[in-house]
Amino acid sequence: MNDTFLKACRGEKTDYTPIWIMRQAGRYLDQYQAVRKKVDFLTLCKTPELAAEVTIQPIDILKVDAAILFSDILIPVEAMGMNLEFHEKRGPVMTPAVRDEDGVKKLSVPDPEDKMKFVMDTIRLLRKELSGRVPLIGFSGAPFTTATYMIEGGTSKTFLNTKRMIFQAPELYASLMDKITATITEYLKAQIKAGAQAAQLFDTWGGIFSPGDFKEYALQYVKKIIADLKKWMKDEKIAPVPIIYFVGETAGLLEEIRTSGADVYGVDWRINIDDAIRRLGSDAVVQGNLDPIAMFLPKDKIELRVKDILGRASSARGHIFNLGHGVLPETSPDNVIALVEMVHRLSRKDR
Amino acid sequence: MNDTFLKACRGEKTDYTPIWIMRQAGRYLDQYQAVRKKVDFLTLCKTPELAAEVTIQPIDILKVDAAILFSDILIPVEAMGMNLEFHEKRGPVMTPAVRDEDGVKKLSVPDPEDKMKFVMDTIRLLRKELSGRVPLIGFSGAPFTTATYMIEGGTSKTFLNTKRMIFQAPELYASLMDKITATITEYLKAQIKAGAQAAQLFDTWGGIFSPGDFKEYALQYVKKIIADLKKWMKDEKIAPVPIIYFVGETAGLLEEIRTSGADVYGVDWRINIDDAIRRLGSDAVVQGNLDPIAMFLPKDKIELRVKDILGRASSARGHIFNLGHGVLPETSPDNVIALVEMVHRLSRKDR
Repeated sequence: MNDTFLKACRGEKTDYTPIWIMRQAGRYLDQYQAVRKKVDFLTLCKTPELAAEVTIQPIDILKVDAAILFSDILIPVEAMGMNLEFHEKRGPVMTPAVRDEDGVKKLSVPDPEDKMKFVMDTIRLLRKELSGRVPLIGFSGAPFTTATYMIEGGTSKTFLNTKRMIFQAPELYASLMDKITATITEYLKAQIKAGAQAAQLFDTWGGIFSPGDFKEYALQYVKKIIADLKKWMKDEKIAPVPIIYFVGETAGLLEEIRTSGADVYGVDWRINIDDAIRRLGSDAVVQGNLDPIAMFLPKDKIELRVKDILGRASSARGHIFNLGHGVLPETSPDNVIALVEMVHRLSRKDR
Repeated sequence: MNDTFLKACRGEKTDYTPIWIMRQAGRYLDQYQAVRKKVDFLTLCKTPELAAEVTIQPIDILKVDAAILFSDILIPVEAMGMNLEFHEKRGPVMTPAVRDEDGVKKLSVPDPEDKMKFVMDTIRLLRKELSGRVPLIGFSGAPFTTATYMIEGGTSKTFLNTKRMIFQAPELYASLMDKITATITEYLKAQIKAGAQAAQLFDTWGGIFSPGDFKEYALQYVKKIIADLKKWMKDEKIAPVPIIYFVGETAGLLEEIRTSGADVYGVDWRINIDDAIRRLGSDAVVQGNLDPIAMFLPKDKIELRVKDILGRASSARGHIFNLGHGVLPETSPDNVIALVEMVHRLSRKDR
């Protein structure tokens, strides 16, 4: 088994720097498009055989060091009782948007093995099909990012409704966050029980906050989830599963993020990774941070950037290579294959 | 004359912290809406009497310490030869998008007193009408932010076309940037000659870069403009006009930004301003950085945040209070009036 990724998560020595890529199973791959043509996006998420198939595609094609469950961060939102649809242009639409006490009351904290059984089935199937080739990462949206979709009813530019609720009705927001936090905690426990060997919390929109607000309105709930998961794994005598915390636009928030309790910190590309490590502490394990659009560079230029990041990241206790955000649909798979090869080759030379 | 703003820009002692607000002349004001009802947005920008009227509104209503020319960062884009329209929903649309050599060739470096005379007329009129009540700030988009609109043909989420050009056709990008840089330099000189007493460069989208790319593809052109302006003011024996450089999502880029040559650095709300000052150097003059959505808080909570920012900013050589981004259209003017009063009152007490 290739356990380089898990070793790196734990800060142990590895022969080379492991790499996986956010959205590595996705639209830029013809093989994904072929599966996706047959079913709509939500059906793909909810059909374990198909979800497992697209999860494994990048392992075969790219030779990455970890698989990540194919799913969507809005699956728990639907399970909590909202109506979820994906529109080709508008993106996800959730109705009715949660804006008042009544809206929060209507939401449930679902039993994941009931309402999201297809996710756990996918994980169980994947563990069989991967049969130890690479570790499987489970994931969930972090509570704040999940809440934005529920309050806005979809994606947003300014997150006005969300911040308005936070600032004008903080108790209402807290009650919503408590339900989301409970849901995500149970969801990740179920993923781990089903076989997820690492778990990433995506706080894509966490970067819209000032550091003080981030701490109060996003981070405290992440801390609670991570602490609960760690206690639960200990109590249940489950071998510790590393938790990765990814925040979009981390640069202003690193001093807060390092208190999250996560084992690995995702770093976006808007900051030099050595600067991020300096602020997180040299005992940190970091994941990142190539600009997704750097994948449009000629390969020799990509290689220069890979070298640069590997060099800068050497000051950390551990480094998992990744893009600073999801790979873009317009990306050439060829360049992604080349990226994985470069990271493996160049990091081996360094040791 | 209230020269508190200009004194603060120069790092001189002031009796209180001056404040102005990005987009202070705008849709959140009924008085603005009343003028805007009569004409479309571009006509408003191009009619000196009306542009001057809405520029002065916030001075009367809010009692801010500076006026900022009412205009749009896309005015020079139209003057360079692109067709510009504002759509109610899509926002600005520029055609044809500049994507190749031919597109760049077609662009001119306009004489501002010819193609953008209405801006200079507005400034001349404003200096008369303001008759020294508060200083007048001129502005322009910074070259990179301007380029994104020209390359994308409008606003964008991922700036894919822009970054693609940068990464795949760097010479083409450089030739476009040279033309934009020359245009903006002449534009700002004309504004200063017409009477602008400070000038702000808006690099709203600068934060989408990694620090290295920011330096190469955005900052070097800003440096050139600022150096050219400073040399020109010296040569022409014009009393130095402070230059403010504002970048959206500054947090990862501050070490680069401090080399820009600007007199004042705009700081967005995603970083604590004392942390920004630490990284910019304590000899820096900073402008910022309240989260625009904090304006939806109850007034007592806004006051706590004002106090916090004033306290944190006291480590800088100078501080001009502002929001971290433009005031939102949904904002209550009452809260903005209260904000200005708080900043004046609380900062006076501090001295």
